[in-house]
Amino acid sequence: VLVGGVPHRTIKLHEDGWAVDVIDQRQLPHAFVRVRLASVEEVARAIRDMWVRGAPLIGAAAAYGMALAARRDPSDEGLARAYATLLETRPTAVNLRWALDAVRARLTPLPPAQRAAAAYAHAAAICDDDVAACRAIGEHALPLLERARRGERLRVLTHCNAGWLATVDWGTALAPVYLMHERGLPVHVWVEETRPRNQGALTAWELGEHGVPHTLIADNAGGLLLQRGEVDVVIVGTDRTTAAGDVLNKIGTYLKALAAHAAGVPFLVAAPGSSIDFTVEHGADVPIEERSPREVTHVAGRAADGRAETVALVPEGTPAYNPAFDVTPAALVTALVTERGVCAASREGLRALYPERAA
Amino acid sequence: VLVGGVPHRTIKLHEDGWAVDVIDQRQLPHAFVRVRLASVEEVARAIRDMWVRGAPLIGAAAAYGMALAARRDPSDEGLARAYATLLETRPTAVNLRWALDAVRARLTPLPPAQRAAAAYAHAAAICDDDVAACRAIGEHALPLLERARRGERLRVLTHCNAGWLATVDWGTALAPVYLMHERGLPVHVWVEETRPRNQGALTAWELGEHGVPHTLIADNAGGLLLQRGEVDVVIVGTDRTTAAGDVLNKIGTYLKALAAHAAGVPFLVAAPGSSIDFTVEHGADVPIEERSPREVTHVAGRAADGRAETVALVPEGTPAYNPAFDVTPAALVTALVTERGVCAASREGLRALYPERAA
Repeated sequence: VLVGGVPHRTIKLHEDGWAVDVIDQRQLPHAFVRVRLASVEEVARAIRDMWVRGAPLIGAAAAYGMALAARRDPSDEGLARAYATLLETRPTAVNLRWALDAVRARLTPLPPAQRAAAAYAHAAAICDDDVAACRAIGEHALPLLERARRGERLRVLTHCNAGWLATVDWGTALAPVYLMHERGLPVHVWVEETRPRNQGALTAWELGEHGVPHTLIADNAGGLLLQRGEVDVVIVGTDRTTAAGDVLNKIGTYLKALAAHAAGVPFLVAAPGSSIDFTVEHGADVPIEERSPREVTHVAGRAADGRAETVALVPEGTPAYNPAFDVTPAALVTALVTERGVCAASREGLRALYPERAA
Repeated sequence: VLVGGVPHRTIKLHEDGWAVDVIDQRQLPHAFVRVRLASVEEVARAIRDMWVRGAPLIGAAAAYGMALAARRDPSDEGLARAYATLLETRPTAVNLRWALDAVRARLTPLPPAQRAAAAYAHAAAICDDDVAACRAIGEHALPLLERARRGERLRVLTHCNAGWLATVDWGTALAPVYLMHERGLPVHVWVEETRPRNQGALTAWELGEHGVPHTLIADNAGGLLLQRGEVDVVIVGTDRTTAAGDVLNKIGTYLKALAAHAAGVPFLVAAPGSSIDFTVEHGADVPIEERSPREVTHVAGRAADGRAETVALVPEGTPAYNPAFDVTPAALVTALVTERGVCAASREGLRALYPERAA
């Protein structure tokens, strides 16, 4: 996807050949800054403090974190420490554990001297696979969207950022949008602000850089738009989809699933296989990350003179609560769109696509 | 309701005996500043720019605006101009038209020389009536809440600000909360931020000043709390309730009504008679005010050094859309709580309470 007319991936090997080069997403949408991460501790901080965010990108970053760790200390103890450090950064997204497990399984049988090179190769493969999976999700979603748009401009509503910034490239929920745009099919995206961290600003920014028509709205406005028939389809990503098809995604997703259901509008979840957790049956069994109340009471932006500025929205000491995800029950999900195709949000639907993983 | 231990009303005659004294709510929750409005134009600006907001308070302010106009020019033409100026400030709240019609009906039969005094008296009566109506709403809601709390601390979820700041005193949705607090009944309020204008900050502030336990959340978090059984009752206000019981209220209300319905949690609407519009059958027939996109793209707060600061949340030029209200269909409303008692959100329910107004 383009930034200032230039194609970018969110994560890559730094030009020094061993460090990791990511976008500091905390500075978006106001500044596009790539930063160099040179240790597993720096990668862990970047994940925890959301320099990188989005379930697929978190997985890719964690894989490179393991590579950095293996470069410094390829012993079993060293890798176990790195695994633990990275795993504890974010509790809800399952891609994190998935990527860590994949790298560990690849390295454990190898002699320590070969582990660093193998880890870098595997991290690179995870990135390439993610790009291919996102592109495939776009392709599989397209026929559903073609039906929804009935020859007119397709009006998409999305929550949070499940665009290329949340992945390595293309995005999950936005992959079909970028594909439509590439093929000259008219599309417009209602972008929900996504309080409290305002990832909608990332979505608006990336769509704007790529030239896709879009409009930012408060999360509260999505219900009215659905009610009024101004949305043809809701598409969101997922941080973890359970074996029964419940969807853990950014807080507020559930409310839009309810409103889409009430309006008879399809609610699609772009779910790469790496985000599906066959070890958990129901959404209620997944821990919901609670983040700092300060994300609710304060907000970062740009002052009129261009300075980055964080302002308090409420008086000092106002108590606040900040759960980061909610559960959209499978019954409210019209379809899951994976890199292997489209399926119902159900045990049967998922088993048909991932027979080797469903127990 | 108390501010810094001192009882306040949101609107009163200024100590000069003729101007109007209101709170500049744009400066809340960071600064509590009362301001003097000395002309109908100043009142109109205060309503339009939301120095005063909340359907009942808008009605009271508009009545005083008519009084200020009558003091300067009590002719029929003068009053007609003032009426038009005030009516166009906010299109959705019906209390505005209700108050203006009431004052006009009172003044029209009088000789111009008597109009100013009558207008001031009528505005004061509207304020006193509002206080009494709010208090009565609290009393009528209390039995419903007592049942909901089952002897434990009652956990209320509210959206926007329908507290004393939205009325003359007591509030509509918060009147029962203040009553419970006054009577020593344990209550806790989940306060939704209410983007884009963050009226939840007003609610958190007024509850904090009065000593009522509360916690601020992002609007997106309300669905999760309902889903998890952490809410006993949702109570909101209304800017206009139609003859069939559809509820126009702050954007995002509809989403919480859906989530409350899904969770089997009562969804109560505190609706003073002045907010019920018997001339409109359905919510879809009411115009929805669209406000400036800048309310979505920018936010005001306090910088670390205490300065008031407005920051941009997205890059300059990001398109945004900002509808201010949505429609909660009557079917999702458990009950309307009015100053005359509780009724179903239906034509029959409203007719039983307001037989003289329902055609």
